[in-house]
Amino acid sequence: MSTQIMDKVDKTTFLYEKIIDDIRNRIANGNLRPGEKLPSVRKLSRDWDVSVSTVLQSYIALETIGLIEAKPQSGYYIRYKSGRVLPEPETPNIQSAIKNYGCNELVTNLCELSTIPGLISLGAGIPGSDVLPTKTLNNLLSRIARSCSKGINYEFPPGNSKLRHELAKRTIEWGGDISQEDIIITNGATEALSLSLQAVAKAGDTILTESPTYYGVLQLIENFGMHALEIPTHPKDGIDIDAFKKAIKNHKVAACILYPSINNPLGSIMPDDNKRKVYEILSGKDIPLIEGDVYGELYFGQTRPKPIKSLDKKGLVLYSSSFKTIAPGYRVGWVCPGRYFDKVKKLKYMSSLANASFPQMAMAEFLRTGGYERCIRNLRKKFISNISIVSSLICEYFPDGTKISKPQGGHYLWIELPENVNSIKLQRLALKENISIAPGPLFSTKDDFLNYIRLSCACSWSSVIDKVIKTLGELCKKAH
Amino acid sequence: MSTQIMDKVDKTTFLYEKIIDDIRNRIANGNLRPGEKLPSVRKLSRDWDVSVSTVLQSYIALETIGLIEAKPQSGYYIRYKSGRVLPEPETPNIQSAIKNYGCNELVTNLCELSTIPGLISLGAGIPGSDVLPTKTLNNLLSRIARSCSKGINYEFPPGNSKLRHELAKRTIEWGGDISQEDIIITNGATEALSLSLQAVAKAGDTILTESPTYYGVLQLIENFGMHALEIPTHPKDGIDIDAFKKAIKNHKVAACILYPSINNPLGSIMPDDNKRKVYEILSGKDIPLIEGDVYGELYFGQTRPKPIKSLDKKGLVLYSSSFKTIAPGYRVGWVCPGRYFDKVKKLKYMSSLANASFPQMAMAEFLRTGGYERCIRNLRKKFISNISIVSSLICEYFPDGTKISKPQGGHYLWIELPENVNSIKLQRLALKENISIAPGPLFSTKDDFLNYIRLSCACSWSSVIDKVIKTLGELCKKAH
Repeated sequence: MSTQIMDKVDKTTFLYEKIIDDIRNRIANGNLRPGEKLPSVRKLSRDWDVSVSTVLQSYIALETIGLIEAKPQSGYYIRYKSGRVLPEPETPNIQSAIKNYGCNELVTNLCELSTIPGLISLGAGIPGSDVLPTKTLNNLLSRIARSCSKGINYEFPPGNSKLRHELAKRTIEWGGDISQEDIIITNGATEALSLSLQAVAKAGDTILTESPTYYGVLQLIENFGMHALEIPTHPKDGIDIDAFKKAIKNHKVAACILYPSINNPLGSIMPDDNKRKVYEILSGKDIPLIEGDVYGELYFGQTRPKPIKSLDKKGLVLYSSSFKTIAPGYRVGWVCPGRYFDKVKKLKYMSSLANASFPQMAMAEFLRTGGYERCIRNLRKKFISNISIVSSLICEYFPDGTKISKPQGGHYLWIELPENVNSIKLQRLALKENISIAPGPLFSTKDDFLNYIRLSCACSWSSVIDKVIKTLGELCKKAH
Repeated sequence: MSTQIMDKVDKTTFLYEKIIDDIRNRIANGNLRPGEKLPSVRKLSRDWDVSVSTVLQSYIALETIGLIEAKPQSGYYIRYKSGRVLPEPETPNIQSAIKNYGCNELVTNLCELSTIPGLISLGAGIPGSDVLPTKTLNNLLSRIARSCSKGINYEFPPGNSKLRHELAKRTIEWGGDISQEDIIITNGATEALSLSLQAVAKAGDTILTESPTYYGVLQLIENFGMHALEIPTHPKDGIDIDAFKKAIKNHKVAACILYPSINNPLGSIMPDDNKRKVYEILSGKDIPLIEGDVYGELYFGQTRPKPIKSLDKKGLVLYSSSFKTIAPGYRVGWVCPGRYFDKVKKLKYMSSLANASFPQMAMAEFLRTGGYERCIRNLRKKFISNISIVSSLICEYFPDGTKISKPQGGHYLWIELPENVNSIKLQRLALKENISIAPGPLFSTKDDFLNYIRLSCACSWSSVIDKVIKTLGELCKKAH
């Protein structure tokens, strides 16, 4: 019923959501604790200057998702969770033999599944329309398309200069000594990664990666006939420094691909000290580092994590990022390839010639006018809240022996299930219930993560999420 | 002076250009012949219902570009050209040894030069803003961006279904037995080519190509560590069938890349009979054919040339095309990869994940509403006229021994200069005069085309083109 009302009145919807968000955030931040009483509906209606019925609807929605409960004759209370605290997942500490990746079909399926209407997508990392700056950004694009005739023609590499200017400006925040001349616009972070890898390595080469890591990395390495050397990476502080050192010493590594500031799927951030160590080791051997930073701006802490690129005096780091979390369909990514600039630019010409012009122009304007900054700030809050809700539901519903990451940014949860759970079977069972998840084997060439899953919390499913996580928890018992 | 007036009054500009276009077309089609008298300024002013001064300006413009001349006390006449008729260029008939391509820097420069304001770009094949459907298409995109929120999110491979539907419908025209399920949207024809090549061949393989051929083909072959085997290709009827047969017999060819319907730079169309022979030979040996058809719709004859894909019963042909001639900055291309569909789709996921969503939506609508059909029809006329003008100026101003192609479509002229002219030197000299051209060596790994150039006639330079071609003709004498 409440959704029908929401469709009708925009302003009411806004306030309704504001109340939900506010209470969610307070729960997530620990400002509201289990057992605490919420303000009465009447008081909140006065305080927020909204109708009693709007407040009531918000409370009902919060109740539906299991965050609060009504006590008869008394009011609304923050719900006591089961009280279970789950530990963080382990990463098997065995360094991998070099092995091929066999999960290509699973990856394609993951993306394709996400487009099925009605499916609850916890699989692919695709933001829900509720978290995207849809109206603002699309209107910006619309305005530019109407007024700037230039966009129908090519925007040759390195790409739109206004956009590169804005991007370079933003790197000041993390001490990036980067000018617009150092940047090449790409068709999303995926193309940035593909071009970077082609620029620094060739078939037969060994590429050091995190384990677990983003499946796109493993696919590309295999596609180019290279080999992944996976290094154990931990949910808290990223890649294992000792294992990393050993690997560089014992193998002829052509390049590294790391996501040091918010790994996907772990949500880990490497401590600055470790970043420095990694850079020193690589720099000493002149090994290029492909540094992905797509989630770098989605940190949950006080300050933005510093990319390893900020330490790079030799142009050894090919740093890349994108706008995938705010406008995936715009396909705007970028790379600062350091000393490999000319090579990457040449590869961009050959692989796709240029990027669509209008999306670049719109993103430049979105950055310049501060729209992006506002959007990313909201997104951080939203993801903190989503992750906190899904985490607490997992604590409540998942079987004994489950371990769960405490991400420091992004929108993924990495979950270690009891050893006898087969995540590929779990994925299959979940699909029958209209739920998609990402099974652990996607994130490694090894067989270590068969009882792991990644859940994306990039959408808000409000009323259904309680039921969804409960269902998943129950399916764990059958997925053997 | 006339340009100042043009800026002021839009309607006048329109009529002014209409008159010029009309007379150009009549000259191009042979409806107006050298020596014939044009209608008097007063008569045309009455017939077209425009002011005498507008007609006069049109006549002056046509006189400036050397198409007509004023005879005192008599009126305007179609100008007698020098009467020289130049033969078509030769293609050296020696089959190439397999050699690497060394022109990468030249290619990048060609594109980058085209963006310099004020430069007369006869080099890169980039349409001028005067020939593009800028307003119609950009307004369409603008409208869609404002009304359809979906476009901010991913449009995963194979890409926008409405666009694929429209594209499939269009292939009926040439007997393509293609449904929307056979099509994958790519980031322009460049990505289509790159993905196709990766799908059918690997490092070390030999790829048969036309000679001369589009430089992007040679770059990609080199980039993937493959080898180009170039087969002589003629300005009139395309690839030499006997040389082709021999090559397939004598070499282990992994794949072919051909542009059978309007080769770039030649403008040639293979006779249907030759197309059939090529398909039979390849089909007999199960060798995949990558068929580029970017200029296929820009035919100058009565009927659309049939792609080899129309003969393909085995799914051996990876057919691709794009909208590069009408909206290069939209980056919408496509490929029908036949039996390699899954492989190409997987590669698309890995290389760039998805295409920008809004440009796909806009192109779908442009096709559906008939805007594309109107646009491409105008473009054909425009290019016929441009090519005819530039050709006749070359006949007038270029040195003895020059040979020139008679393209059957597209917007390129392929010119063989006297043997002692070095086209790379000519390019350098021309740049000093603010003119860019494409030197012959770009189009081959061989050294056969040092005294050849390609000129793009995709823009209309009206009043300056006479001077530009005259200058180029004079520079030929210095470029030794």
